[in-house]
Amino acid sequence: MAYLELNALSVILCGSFRANVYLPEMDKLNLKDERHEKKYPVLWLLHSEGGSCLDWNKTMAEACAAEYGIIIVAPDAQHSLCTNMEYGPKYEDFLAKELPGIVRNNLPAAKEAEKNWIGGVGTGAYGAVKAAIKHPEVFSKCIALDGIFDMEKICRQAEEDKPTGIFHKEESLKAVFGSLQAFKNSEHDIYALAEKCGKGKFYIAGTDTSPYADERKRLAERLKEKAYYVRTEGEIMNFGEPVALKNAVRWLLDKK
Amino acid sequence: MAYLELNALSVILCGSFRANVYLPEMDKLNLKDERHEKKYPVLWLLHSEGGSCLDWNKTMAEACAAEYGIIIVAPDAQHSLCTNMEYGPKYEDFLAKELPGIVRNNLPAAKEAEKNWIGGVGTGAYGAVKAAIKHPEVFSKCIALDGIFDMEKICRQAEEDKPTGIFHKEESLKAVFGSLQAFKNSEHDIYALAEKCGKGKFYIAGTDTSPYADERKRLAERLKEKAYYVRTEGEIMNFGEPVALKNAVRWLLDKK
Amino acid sequence: MAYLELNALSVILCGSFRANVYLPEMDKLNLKDERHEKKYPVLWLLHSEGGSCLDWNKTMAEACAAEYGIIIVAPDAQHSLCTNMEYGPKYEDFLAKELPGIVRNNLPAAKEAEKNWIGGVGTGAYGAVKAAIKHPEVFSKCIALDGIFDMEKICRQAEEDKPTGIFHKEESLKAVFGSLQAFKNSEHDIYALAEKCGKGKFYIAGTDTSPYADERKRLAERLKEKAYYVRTEGEIMNFGEPVALKNAVRWLLDKK
Amino acid sequence: MAYLELNALSVILCGSFRANVYLPEMDKLNLKDERHEKKYPVLWLLHSEGGSCLDWNKTMAEACAAEYGIIIVAPDAQHSLCTNMEYGPKYEDFLAKELPGIVRNNLPAAKEAEKNWIGGVGTGAYGAVKAAIKHPEVFSKCIALDGIFDMEKICRQAEEDKPTGIFHKEESLKAVFGSLQAFKNSEHDIYALAEKCGKGKFYIAGTDTSPYADERKRLAERLKEKAYYVRTEGEIMNFGEPVALKNAVRWLLDKK
Repeated sequence: MAYLELNALSVILCGSFRANVYLPEMDKLNLKDERHEKKYPVLWLLHSEGGSCLDWNKTMAEACAAEYGIIIVAPDAQHSLCTNMEYGPKYEDFLAKELPGIVRNNLPAAKEAEKNWIGGVGTGAYGAVKAAIKHPEVFSKCIALDGIFDMEKICRQAEEDKPTGIFHKEESLKAVFGSLQAFKNSEHDIYALAEKCGKGKFYIAGTDTSPYADERKRLAERLKEKAYYVRTEGEIMNFGEPVALKNAVRWLLDKK
Repeated sequence: MAYLELNALSVILCGSFRANVYLPEMDKLNLKDERHEKKYPVLWLLHSEGGSCLDWNKTMAEACAAEYGIIIVAPDAQHSLCTNMEYGPKYEDFLAKELPGIVRNNLPAAKEAEKNWIGGVGTGAYGAVKAAIKHPEVFSKCIALDGIFDMEKICRQAEEDKPTGIFHKEESLKAVFGSLQAFKNSEHDIYALAEKCGKGKFYIAGTDTSPYADERKRLAERLKEKAYYVRTEGEIMNFGEPVALKNAVRWLLDKK
Repeated sequence: MAYLELNALSVILCGSFRANVYLPEMDKLNLKDERHEKKYPVLWLLHSEGGSCLDWNKTMAEACAAEYGIIIVAPDAQHSLCTNMEYGPKYEDFLAKELPGIVRNNLPAAKEAEKNWIGGVGTGAYGAVKAAIKHPEVFSKCIALDGIFDMEKICRQAEEDKPTGIFHKEESLKAVFGSLQAFKNSEHDIYALAEKCGKGKFYIAGTDTSPYADERKRLAERLKEKAYYVRTEGEIMNFGEPVALKNAVRWLLDKK
Repeated sequence: MAYLELNALSVILCGSFRANVYLPEMDKLNLKDERHEKKYPVLWLLHSEGGSCLDWNKTMAEACAAEYGIIIVAPDAQHSLCTNMEYGPKYEDFLAKELPGIVRNNLPAAKEAEKNWIGGVGTGAYGAVKAAIKHPEVFSKCIALDGIFDMEKICRQAEEDKPTGIFHKEESLKAVFGSLQAFKNSEHDIYALAEKCGKGKFYIAGTDTSPYADERKRLAERLKEKAYYVRTEGEIMNFGEPVALKNAVRWLLDKK
């Protein structure tokens, strides 16, 4: 196993950021590759609102990187909802442009879209799907675990001062999305984006009993044949389905 | 030495945060204190814009905690300028209320204001002075190293699209302060606050050659006899004056 | 959640050591306890040979600490087999004496044996059972997950230059135990210790299909009514039985 | 800045190890190097007995890596004195063989000896000089800061049960070196090695007032024209001479 905690400076985020990086098992590395020019596929993984990159330590992320010979990079997203915030950091740009550059300068990470995948859990799944739809030249596949996708509903709840279910309320959602009235069909509305999605493959997993089950299925329907919907028995972050990430990674690698 | 990296959940910040904690040297601890009821003074330390709590690792923070028997807590501040953001986390509330509670629940940290001090470097010094002026019931003394205080000037530069010297521009400053036109004399204007400052002691240090030297002196003047102005030969964060923190801590402890 | 990475100096280990610490959920803390005098039960957790304290990040350790209101402390053990090494650090002394003192000086950790439990996985389970048998005044209960207990067999394999199944060979085992011929019935022989064990409760868990299943059962037999043997469906560290730690913690707390 | 905490598995050390890695400033990277094939010089840095890789955080290591475009790798050495222990890990082999391989597989680290340098402080300086003398095919230059070199004297003190000045006594020194009587002129005796040293350049720095000043000068004399002796005003690890590492790095880079 090899596990890095990366602290680096982002020009786009205007400051330092933290990411956890899981590397392929050393003995899987090609040690005869004297010039060390081999590049590994990369899975970019986004935590959910209120969490941090440390959340992935409790999943099989390290085991997946080691066993399947991929690099997994999990950056902190703070409260950006992985979005180019109206008032705040342009997180989507960071994710699609700057972070891959920083990582490729420092680690043997492949550059081709077909070897770059993005994933997330909860609101991180929202961020991952959005990034994959908008940046198919960067990410060719996406895995969305226990996703929370319907931000329009969350905006409405916030406006009505009801619990949003995530660590956000009206004011902080405005900092992210700008006017909440204008959310529907905006570039942040994942259902509108899904309608126009031209490329990519999407693995959408979750339990049948989740209050978010319907919005996941609805997203899968919008993505049509590009989506692969998977019913799980439990949720990954509360240890209800520890193999959820492993199964998703196997799908990325076209393994049965 | 004892050095903790704390990752915990903040209700006010709506998510997890990171802090570095430096503890008194074990052999300075009173091991006969069988019930471990001794509480240590606490210095709360704020990094500058664009940095992180890791910045303090390169100062004598650990050495100061060990040698002088104090706890030093250095939280991440992200882009909040240590302020209750208009659009974003209420960082000042976090600092003055929630963080002390979390720390005191988990570490032997004293509660009395006379044993709680706040400090910072760069924009962290701005945050520290502001918190000390507004919350004298929490922090009795403040140390401001290489401070950047004149946020009104920075707001004006941002509006005119000039370089601000910190990792902020008009839009992100609005997320922090709200309307930039209304900044002057607002609760964020440290010079206005200083006029009305009723309590506290302020150690304000920096070089004569800094572009911020004038605004530091101006702040010291406003704080009148409550300020102690110190001229340094170099800046702490570029190793120009490594003893800057140590000298400031000695001042906190009334040591010559 | 609150998660600490502790780096501190040990006199007994002659150097700095690292430990992961998981704390009770903040909202479980008694915030009316103004003087913060509440002390929490502590579970001391030992990783297996070749691992590190980071291993516990992938278990429910954080969730158990948060949910059940206990402190979990997981120190690095390096290659000591949690033993007072013949040539090397006196790890058992560190564990039973110095580490509890360091932790209690810095965290609200209970002191009474009935609120101090020790546990481990693999060779860490060997270390935990040994410490619990030898130090009943410190640890009242022990949880041993997927334990590797028969060090005599490992010593014999090492002498015969066969694979030991752990990251040790003859030479490094001598550094730990001294003469391998003298191992049987020594203070390191857990079966000999178990015969004479006067106090304590032992939770011994593992799969039926493990090559170590027999030696686990044999240990449980020696410990007689003090042992509670549990058959699991998979191993904790490869995510085969993620609830293994949670079940063991519930047993510590006498929960059904 | 970019700062990595690396946790990886070592076959030679039989377990996981930790290293701090400091990387060149991102904006110094050649972003037109689309295929990211540029490799950076590497300085391997060893802490002193009783410390850890975290010690380097308080030096200008990060600043040097950023400013001069080099990678600095600082591994934990525990109590090995950076030596192939008689009873314990073969740390010298790890340092000269395995660690460079692991790092080069994961980071853009140059392979040529002329771009690989080793350094250390205290007993880490002993380890660095020894590695540089014995492995000129790996390390072309060496920087030794505040070095503690005369292990024979330390062995004698230990045998006479006198304080050794480092965190070692007779028993633990035997675990490292084997028979202490046989130390003189052994492969661990740095003065004997220096006599036969065929290649390399050695920067040996320290204060005139150190109790180790004489043994440093003696080492420099033995290394003859290959040594460059530098008198400093203070010690690096207690902030007495914060630029000590920077000056040494400039020497490595042939900068005035």
